[in-house]
Amino acid sequence: MSLPDAQLGGAGSQFLAEIREQPEALLRLLDQSAEFVRVAETMRERDARLVRLVGHGSSDNAASYGIYAFGLIPRWTALRDSITLTVYYDSGPTLAGSTVIGLSQSGRTPDVVEYVSRARQAGAFTVAMTNDPGSALAEAAEAVLPLAAGSEQAVAATKTYLNTVAGLALLAAHAAGQGAEYEAGLRATAEILAGHLAELERLVAPLAVPFSYIGRMFVIGRGPEYATAREIALKLLETCRVAAEPLTATDLSHGPIAAVDSLFPVWAITSDDVTLPIVTEAAERIRATGATLVASGTSAASIEGADYALPVPVPPLPLLSPILSVVPGQLFALALARAKGLDPDEPRGLSKVTLVR
Amino acid sequence: MSLPDAQLGGAGSQFLAEIREQPEALLRLLDQSAEFVRVAETMRERDARLVRLVGHGSSDNAASYGIYAFGLIPRWTALRDSITLTVYYDSGPTLAGSTVIGLSQSGRTPDVVEYVSRARQAGAFTVAMTNDPGSALAEAAEAVLPLAAGSEQAVAATKTYLNTVAGLALLAAHAAGQGAEYEAGLRATAEILAGHLAELERLVAPLAVPFSYIGRMFVIGRGPEYATAREIALKLLETCRVAAEPLTATDLSHGPIAAVDSLFPVWAITSDDVTLPIVTEAAERIRATGATLVASGTSAASIEGADYALPVPVPPLPLLSPILSVVPGQLFALALARAKGLDPDEPRGLSKVTLVR
Repeated sequence: MSLPDAQLGGAGSQFLAEIREQPEALLRLLDQSAEFVRVAETMRERDARLVRLVGHGSSDNAASYGIYAFGLIPRWTALRDSITLTVYYDSGPTLAGSTVIGLSQSGRTPDVVEYVSRARQAGAFTVAMTNDPGSALAEAAEAVLPLAAGSEQAVAATKTYLNTVAGLALLAAHAAGQGAEYEAGLRATAEILAGHLAELERLVAPLAVPFSYIGRMFVIGRGPEYATAREIALKLLETCRVAAEPLTATDLSHGPIAAVDSLFPVWAITSDDVTLPIVTEAAERIRATGATLVASGTSAASIEGADYALPVPVPPLPLLSPILSVVPGQLFALALARAKGLDPDEPRGLSKVTLVR
Repeated sequence: MSLPDAQLGGAGSQFLAEIREQPEALLRLLDQSAEFVRVAETMRERDARLVRLVGHGSSDNAASYGIYAFGLIPRWTALRDSITLTVYYDSGPTLAGSTVIGLSQSGRTPDVVEYVSRARQAGAFTVAMTNDPGSALAEAAEAVLPLAAGSEQAVAATKTYLNTVAGLALLAAHAAGQGAEYEAGLRATAEILAGHLAELERLVAPLAVPFSYIGRMFVIGRGPEYATAREIALKLLETCRVAAEPLTATDLSHGPIAAVDSLFPVWAITSDDVTLPIVTEAAERIRATGATLVASGTSAASIEGADYALPVPVPPLPLLSPILSVVPGQLFALALARAKGLDPDEPRGLSKVTLVR
């Protein structure tokens, strides 16, 4: 069964509708391709190859992916830059040679807008990646990359996260002259997702009740899937009130593993690449503690003895797997929130646009 | 009262002895000053001003501080670099113009050693900052900065963390021609810490019992104190089995605040600088949820309505406050571990040298 349509209109109905809309949202992003070509050309022309990514929440999680998109496709260095240094300490370095990408679905996150304004004065090539091309962030930057995800109503981001990840892949690909290949890859990935959503909804449904009394969890990944680990952990925190902490598979062993036990489950995100042995070895250490283990991602079946497996299909390009592997986490958050009587459309204490500093 | 000396020889006795030894360890680091001068000169001579920091666990937490030390003193960009890109994907960029600093107290962390070896081949100026100048990491790098913390026996790092933070400040200061000022500042900070440890032990003692049943916690900071938030959270995870997650004060509002309630306390680290209003505003939002609030750091008294305040003295240079502000967290972890019947010298499932990948 899929997650019950009967609940459309009830708790989490917007969240579910937006999860389901993600394949279409991805295709709308691809309609913006000309903008991505232009920004990538400017990055090369200005030799602005140090890529500084700034954002909060889901946007910052997507930035973790951007480090790998730029690192693996054009082999440029990207970093999640300190906002505080530039905005509060007024200590930003000269930014000639840097591209700054401000990430904000609303385009209104105050310190991201301020960072981009100052970076522009300091000589960076500034780009706004936002779902609102008329926003303050778009005005502050020299160039705008529209997410084109369509209106997102649920407070917890889904399609804007996916389109930010896809947008960073697309920009990195154009920067490396591989735009056409990645455009085709993203189009195929959107189709794969559309064809697989109902199956994923079926797979996550049985997990909700067993996890209803869980208060804490680790979510681990490595490489590009560390972004997925961060985004799934954030969904669980904001929609299910689970203390979910993202860690790289390696960092888990540098201390946090000591806290894991049978009431402290771990969710491991796998991908079919060189990082797989790191994750499978971490999974062995987790199983030795007696903790419940959830395995997801393209190589979920490689994790022996996992209590639950949530595999996703393999996309045409390995670097695009985070677009698929986050979706079981979104659906699990929805199912668990409902099981706990929470409404993921409007988590207590949050609003869609975060204007605090 | 101090934490009971009677327990020396019992659970956590090494951990406590090493916490108390930190002022001396800091002074031993200052004896290594000539090495720091030499490395800073090479960084300037080679124009290797993009600083790539790599490490796991406490070393990676110190790297978060390094971003601010280099950003605020010489105004260079430092980043916590991806180890995976270079070691597993073999996709490292050309590293001319970069200084790489491998951080590992043991000098044996496998992927840090491998990263440094590859970075050296790719043209970076490579530096090992380690407590073992005869280690594999020291051999792999062109230059070695000894932490000189003395033998650390407790599995949970304390003095090696403090000396890594101090070492990064010292190196950044020498890179900016402000070495003498920071050396004097570090010496004075060591003295302040020595004079204040007993008072801190008195302050944390009453917190242990009320927190014995707490399973999860957020630790927030901003700017240089984000490193402190990360390190305190890691101590709580590894020694007390509390699911403690570090967050910037701003990121707390971008989702995680939804999870906070009266059984989900927040520890806020303050410092007397431009980031203070961000932390005080976050503290107001936390108090509105009914969560227990612990305030520490140099401006703990600025957090109105905090349930517990753990202030530390103001050091002679503002950037050195993380050296003092982490200590209440170390002592709290010790007190809480003992209250829970755990031994912070040997947390279950951990060993002093982490050799996993």
